This record gives sequence, structure tokens and C-alpha cells, in this order.
Amino acid sequence: MNPVLIEVLRGGTVESRHAGALAIVDASGAVHTALGDIERPIFPRSAVKLLQALPLVASGAAGAFGLTDEELALACASHSGEPIHVETAAGVLAKLGLDAGALECGTQWPSREPVLRAMAARGEVATPLHNNCSGKHGGFVCLACLMARNAGAEPAEFARGYVAADHPVMREVSAALSAATGVDVEQAPRGIDGCSIPTFALPLRALALAFARAGTGQCLPAGHARAARRLREAVAAAPFMVGGTDRFDTRVMQAFGERLFCKIGAEGVYCAALPELGLGVALKIDDGAARAAEAAMAAVAQALLKTEDDVLRGYSHLVLRNWRGTEVGALRPAAGLDSV
Amino acid sequence: MNPVLIEVLRGGTVESRHAGALAIVDASGAVHTALGDIERPIFPRSAVKLLQALPLVASGAAGAFGLTDEELALACASHSGEPIHVETAAGVLAKLGLDAGALECGTQWPSREPVLRAMAARGEVATPLHNNCSGKHGGFVCLACLMARNAGAEPAEFARGYVAADHPVMREVSAALSAATGVDVEQAPRGIDGCSIPTFALPLRALALAFARAGTGQCLPAGHARAARRLREAVAAAPFMVGGTDRFDTRVMQAFGERLFCKIGAEGVYCAALPELGLGVALKIDDGAARAAEAAMAAVAQALLKTEDDVLRGYSHLVLRNWRGTEVGALRPAAGLDSV
Repeated sequence: MNPVLIEVLRGGTVESRHAGALAIVDASGAVHTALGDIERPIFPRSAVKLLQALPLVASGAAGAFGLTDEELALACASHSGEPIHVETAAGVLAKLGLDAGALECGTQWPSREPVLRAMAARGEVATPLHNNCSGKHGGFVCLACLMARNAGAEPAEFARGYVAADHPVMREVSAALSAATGVDVEQAPRGIDGCSIPTFALPLRALALAFARAGTGQCLPAGHARAARRLREAVAAAPFMVGGTDRFDTRVMQAFGERLFCKIGAEGVYCAALPELGLGVALKIDDGAARAAEAAMAAVAQALLKTEDDVLRGYSHLVLRNWRGTEVGALRPAAGLDSV
Repeated sequence: MNPVLIEVLRGGTVESRHAGALAIVDASGAVHTALGDIERPIFPRSAVKLLQALPLVASGAAGAFGLTDEELALACASHSGEPIHVETAAGVLAKLGLDAGALECGTQWPSREPVLRAMAARGEVATPLHNNCSGKHGGFVCLACLMARNAGAEPAEFARGYVAADHPVMREVSAALSAATGVDVEQAPRGIDGCSIPTFALPLRALALAFARAGTGQCLPAGHARAARRLREAVAAAPFMVGGTDRFDTRVMQAFGERLFCKIGAEGVYCAALPELGLGVALKIDDGAARAAEAAMAAVAQALLKTEDDVLRGYSHLVLRNWRGTEVGALRPAAGLDSV
């Protein structure tokens, strides 16, 4: 069993608890911190979007189609489907001469309730552009269009089916994951992600290693090292694109800029890079809870950056309120996290 | 540590897992099944709404104000805020000569997204009537109105502040919990619930005992035994009121009628009564996940009722689909539940 990382209090009583595992690793693979089982393969889900976007930049596709900081940040995002996210995703496709019909991520209403209500009030309906992964998929389509140009193929036709593991686009994405993590993902347990692309189960140790490399450029193919730097800079310049209003990744990267790259994944995953320390972080809450993944990531970032930043503490010690706004409890890091 | 009760699969790989504890007890207190720590106090939250509604019926308030099956079922509900729930809650208050201003549960938008979108499209905003607890609170106000009548007091004034632990209404509710569980709740760890009333942390064993008693009438005060039967009959007659469209409690009680009373609570709690077997059930998922509480309750109900019912199996082995509708995984009961 993995240790309890986050406790949920109601009044003075622990109501719920979240166990999990955590790996902090440097670019050479040396383990800085290991809590729980960091060798068991876990699906990183959207926490590796930065790694999945490496071929978009390294191939030259992002440059060829003139993608902006905002558009590159959106390629690394799980956004809340706010108007600026939707417009930016549509703008990428327009640069390619395509539209939302090219996206294979499926349709999702915005995760942020006030945004969803405002859409409904305007009589709008969700499209694939509102899917939290629309920016990442726009990046995949952009890469497909460069490949099509190089092959003399029709772009939309070449791109079709890009979510399949054996499509040239997804083969590049998988190869980037293998290079960064040092694990041949083709040999890893495979699942289908929420947005229909393959997701590979990898050890937390390997995921933390990949983010130490993405944060430092060390031990990456040179093109990927440059691409990782370009993507981190883009996210630091446009952090609203990565999440949205009141989202952890947006608020934390607004506060810390290039000092901390972090990205949540579904089912309780977090990955992060701390370039100044040369460290990568990967954690997984066993039960898949996002609240606990955020609180644990916030506690780890506070410890590593030696900061008492209010944004981070607001997540690690999140105050819980009821429907009348009364404070009823809080999250708190469990003793297991003290060793970070 | 409690045992894993529910596993979450993606492809053929376990992606997440939910540990928890389970007590199945008869009305004499004999333990039929114990998994994990059934003595540690847990907050039952909304899983004990039937017990909290006993004074409404036993006092004569429900009879005096002519509450229907639908209205009594709503008093035991965590409803989805659909139009019929809102209208029924408003109807109870109208019978008392009051309106939504009497409710102290706070304002909540409907939990069911299509209902929320439809409201927003009609330009409506949420009120306390939409709060999932509005029916329970309507019941509290009804009890307050009878108490006011008996005391010669002005009803609205008497009712004000009914959510406080020392209000005459809440003292009756707490006494009913103490009588059913055999635990003096005044001595138990206390928190504030989502709807602002007190919630008391009680052992799963005591909660299962209370539901064995509520299902059989044994070892309860005579008035509470009759009230429990009346409430169970009302819920069986109007199960849509207890939850709503596609909700576990509604679908399962539509299928099983008076054979199974079950009720979810926030943070991964389930309580149930199986009158024909003389058993009560109480379970808590350690991490608070509703998906696992539902799956575990479904697995327990299948085992105890010796049924292969499709509705229950649909929850115990819930199929997970992504935004394109592709099947990507499933829940399944872990080996720990085999002993039920």
C-alpha cells in the first residue's frame, strides 16, 4: 500500500484520506525522493502533454505555421473551455486551412460551470473546440499538415485518423515519450485516453526523469531539448491557456513563471519540472482524486522551492466551504509528505 | 489500512483503486460481514436522511400538514434539482404557508448537467429549492411548524435557525440518530454538513445497526419504527424523488421497491436496509469517491439479494467511455468484496 499523502478534515476530524506515490528525480536518473511504489506503471494521462507536444516544435511544424506562445501553450493544456481557449484552438486550425471537423478528441462541455451556464444562456452548444484537449489535438493536426506537405499529400486526408497508435503523427508522439522517459512505450501497458489517443502506463520514476530532462534539456535529443525550452517559455508567457480561471496550473505558473512547469493529468496524476533545481516530479493519487493531486503537488512545490507562497498554500491547505459559504473543513498534507 | 474494494481499469490495466470499510449487521447488533475498520467514526452525511426524517413522521407533523408519498420521499432525498424536485419542495413549503426563504440549506445549482444547462437556457438561476437537500430541509421546517403550533409560537420565527445543533428541531433529529444507532451522538465528533446542519462521526457498525432497525422496526421506539416503515413505503412508491434521472438510488429502488432501501452520502458513504433479510449495510470509501461507493453498494446488494440484476451490475461493473463514446475501461469489485 502507498502512504497517505493528503487528509481531508471536516471540523477537527479526518473525514477522508488519499494515498499515493511520489517520485522526484534529477536528469541523470538519481532519485531525490521516493514515496510509495514509484516503479509500478501508471497512466500519466494529460500530465505529459508537454512531452507529447515536443514533435510539434522539433519537427518545425510550429514554426512553419507560425504558432504563437498562446497557441503553443494551448497545445500543452487541459483548458476549461473558456471563450479565449476556443478561439485560440479555432485559430490554429484556420492557419492550417482546416476547421473543428479535423479534431478527433470528441465533444465536451466546458468543465467550468459558469462558462457552461453562460454558453447555455447564449443558446450555444459544445463542439470539439471546447474539449479540454482541443489545443493538443490542434497541435497534432498541425504536425500532420507538415508531414503531408513533405509527403506531397492532401493535409486533411493525411491527418485523418491521427489518434491511432500507428498513424505517423502518433508514432512521433510515442517516440518522444520513449526518448524522454527512457522506457520503450511500445512495450508498456496501453489504454485509450479521454481524448482517444493512446496512453501508456509508465513508472513514476521514469515520468519524473522525463520532466527533469524537459526542464534542463539534459539527456534529450537536441531538437527535443530546444522544443521543451520553447514550450516551457510559451507556457510561462501565456499560463491562462494551460488551464483557465481559478485553475491550479494557471494560477501557479502565473505566480512562478519559468521556475515551475506543472501539469495535471486525469485520475490524480501530476508532473512537474523545476529547472533551477534540475528536478522532475511525478505523483499519482491511488484513487484518482484531482483535489489530492493538486494539494500534494502544491505541498511538494512549496518544499522544493522553499516558499510560503499563498497560491500554493491555498491548494495544499484548501479550505472547504458549504453551500452557504460556511467553512466546514480543509485539506492538509499528511505526515508522509514531510520528508520532501 | 482498509482493503481495496473497487478497482478502476483502463484497457486491461488497473489505473486507480478505492479502499474502504463495510459493515453488515442485523437488528440485534450481530455482525454479518465486517471488512476493514468498522469501529472508526465516519461522517455519514446524507446517507442517514431517512433517520433524520423520523421525527417529521413520528411527531405527527407529516400527517398534520398532509405530506404525500412524493413529499416524504423528497425529505429522504439528495435530489438532482430537476423541475419535479423543485416543484415538490416548493409545494411542501406552500402547505406550511411559507416559501423558499424559510430554507437554510444554501443555494446549489442542479448536479445534473443537462438540467443545469436547460435552466441557464431559460434564463433561470438557482435557489435553495434546487439544493439537493431542499426536501430534507422542507421536512425540518414542517416539524418546526408543528412545534410552533403546539407552543403557540409564530411558525416562521420558531423555525428560524433550525440548522443549529441546539434548536428544538435539530435536537429531535439528533435524538433520533442516537436512538437508532445506539450511540449518543452528542458525544461524537461533530462537523457541519454541506447543507449547514450538524453531522456526527459514527462507527459503520452503528450505522449498519441503525438501518437494520429501520428496515425491520426492531429495537426502535414504536413511533420511530412506524415512521421508518412509512418513509420506506413512500420512497418505494416515489423513488424518482430520492435522486432523479439516471441516479443510482432512484434506479435501484425503481427495480427493487421495498426489498432494498439505499441512500448515498457525500464523501463515499452508503447506507442501506434489506428488510427481508433483516440486515443493515453501511460502507465508506476512504477517499470519498462516489463512483466507488455506488459500485461497492451495487456489489453488496447483488450478493445479499442473490441477483444478477442488470441495473446493479451496471454500477458494480460500470463501463467507462471517453468523449467520443469509445469504451476505455470499467470499474470492478476487488477480491476483498468476494467474502460478502
